[in-house]
Amino acid sequence: MNAPHRTTARVRYGETDQMGVVYHANYIVYFELGRTELMRERGIEYAAMERAGLSLAVVEMGSRFLKPARYDETLVVETRLVEASGVRLRFEYSVRRDDGPDAGEVELCRGFTVLACVDRSGRPTRIPDPWRERIERVVAS
Amino acid sequence: MNAPHRTTARVRYGETDQMGVVYHANYIVYFELGRTELMRERGIEYAAMERAGLSLAVVEMGSRFLKPARYDETLVVETRLVEASGVRLRFEYSVRRDDGPDAGEVELCRGFTVLACVDRSGRPTRIPDPWRERIERVVAS
Amino acid sequence: MNAPHRTTARVRYGETDQMGVVYHANYIVYFELGRTELMRERGIEYAAMERAGLSLAVVEMGSRFLKPARYDETLVVETRLVEASGVRLRFEYSVRRDDGPDAGEVELCRGFTVLACVDRSGRPTRIPDPWRERIERVVAS
Amino acid sequence: MNAPHRTTARVRYGETDQMGVVYHANYIVYFELGRTELMRERGIEYAAMERAGLSLAVVEMGSRFLKPARYDETLVVETRLVEASGVRLRFEYSVRRDDGPDAGEVELCRGFTVLACVDRSGRPTRIPDPWRERIERVVAS
Repeated sequence: MNAPHRTTARVRYGETDQMGVVYHANYIVYFELGRTELMRERGIEYAAMERAGLSLAVVEMGSRFLKPARYDETLVVETRLVEASGVRLRFEYSVRRDDGPDAGEVELCRGFTVLACVDRSGRPTRIPDPWRERIERVVAS
Repeated sequence: MNAPHRTTARVRYGETDQMGVVYHANYIVYFELGRTELMRERGIEYAAMERAGLSLAVVEMGSRFLKPARYDETLVVETRLVEASGVRLRFEYSVRRDDGPDAGEVELCRGFTVLACVDRSGRPTRIPDPWRERIERVVAS
Repeated sequence: MNAPHRTTARVRYGETDQMGVVYHANYIVYFELGRTELMRERGIEYAAMERAGLSLAVVEMGSRFLKPARYDETLVVETRLVEASGVRLRFEYSVRRDDGPDAGEVELCRGFTVLACVDRSGRPTRIPDPWRERIERVVAS
Repeated sequence: MNAPHRTTARVRYGETDQMGVVYHANYIVYFELGRTELMRERGIEYAAMERAGLSLAVVEMGSRFLKPARYDETLVVETRLVEASGVRLRFEYSVRRDDGPDAGEVELCRGFTVLACVDRSGRPTRIPDPWRERIERVVAS
């Protein structure tokens, strides 16, 4: 199993709701941050794919919320690219917070997204090289 | 099976992204609109629950994206309250668009959320009457 | 002075922040709702303008926050189209809440946006007929 | 005039709209990032103020949009704290993008926010020490 990519995000004020915690839909945005940074680090730049007329559309997602995150906390987003067919990619995420030397890192939210490569008209499309090769290398690592 | 509650939402400009369609995290907001309106209609006013010190925290969610929605379209959110234990509620959603007399209503997104009743300190709490009774009546209907 | 267009919006949970009130950036979204509905009512459908290759880009905005709005409240957005040159439109907004027969309607937020008509490459462009005629009719009314 | 504080933010996908650029309300969020980081750097931690029962509520804001920002670009947010009375603070912002050695840094958006210190019931309140002293030091610098 490949080691997860790790990136950080600090909770913004507008991401909280009146319960005093991060509004649940915003974890989906943290997932995207993790996915974007994993791809960038492995040479799969998403902005370049879009310029080439391809998009990765989210076709399925799920998440479990274990503990709430709060304003101004620094979160760690762990991301794994776990599966890739010609058209689809599956990413898994764990959003975590470092609670200090004793408690260690606690998991706040866990989830996944499945993305499909589509062309400008929205039709599913085989991911072309060189992106496909780089993606396969990440999954195999 | 109880008939779904139906409410409508028109897609806002800021809810689209540069793919020209609704950004996927925003369907979670549409789910919440459907849930809020179902509860209001059945006499389970969420704002009143919060004033009584209780919150319904989303603990799990999932969704599948079938077709994209676009700016200014009027969407129908169908919501069902399908399960209720003392502490947890499960809602299911179908976001739809009326494509006219021939095509009929097409499903764009389908999903669920599980919510847990928590008190001010975030501890799981049995949903008190009269809300529990009203919830059970919806599930049984 | 033309009578303001009025539309309503109910505050969504995710629009609040941990202060327990609507997060200030979301009023900008309410302004857009008011603007969209005023335009639709007067036969200036924004989605049709975009299909014709034109956009109205916000080039300036300002707002004053007088009183907070809260979750689940029904807000009234009053919108006026107060000025139109060949390229630019100025809208003014007042976001209000009906506090019952004694207190009447109270103003929560007041603001304006200036929009410029731009073509697909972002260049300022004279608003073409029939939209320009309809816009001038609103300003003169 | 005090030198501006500088922080960076990378444009998220969900912050774009179907015009292919950052949706205008999201600059308000960038302003907040700049303000939060300026305050943190100068020892005025906002999360600590809230724990002490005080909030800084935005009472006025304004902005001019000069050029569009796009997905995945790294923006620089320059923030200045330019005025402070006992109750109110005025911040000014310039959102910029580095366009390389020839073009240099270009300004995309310029704006301001006025914030008022309020207590838990929303009443305007004199900012207490040690925050007030630190704020005055920033304004004078």
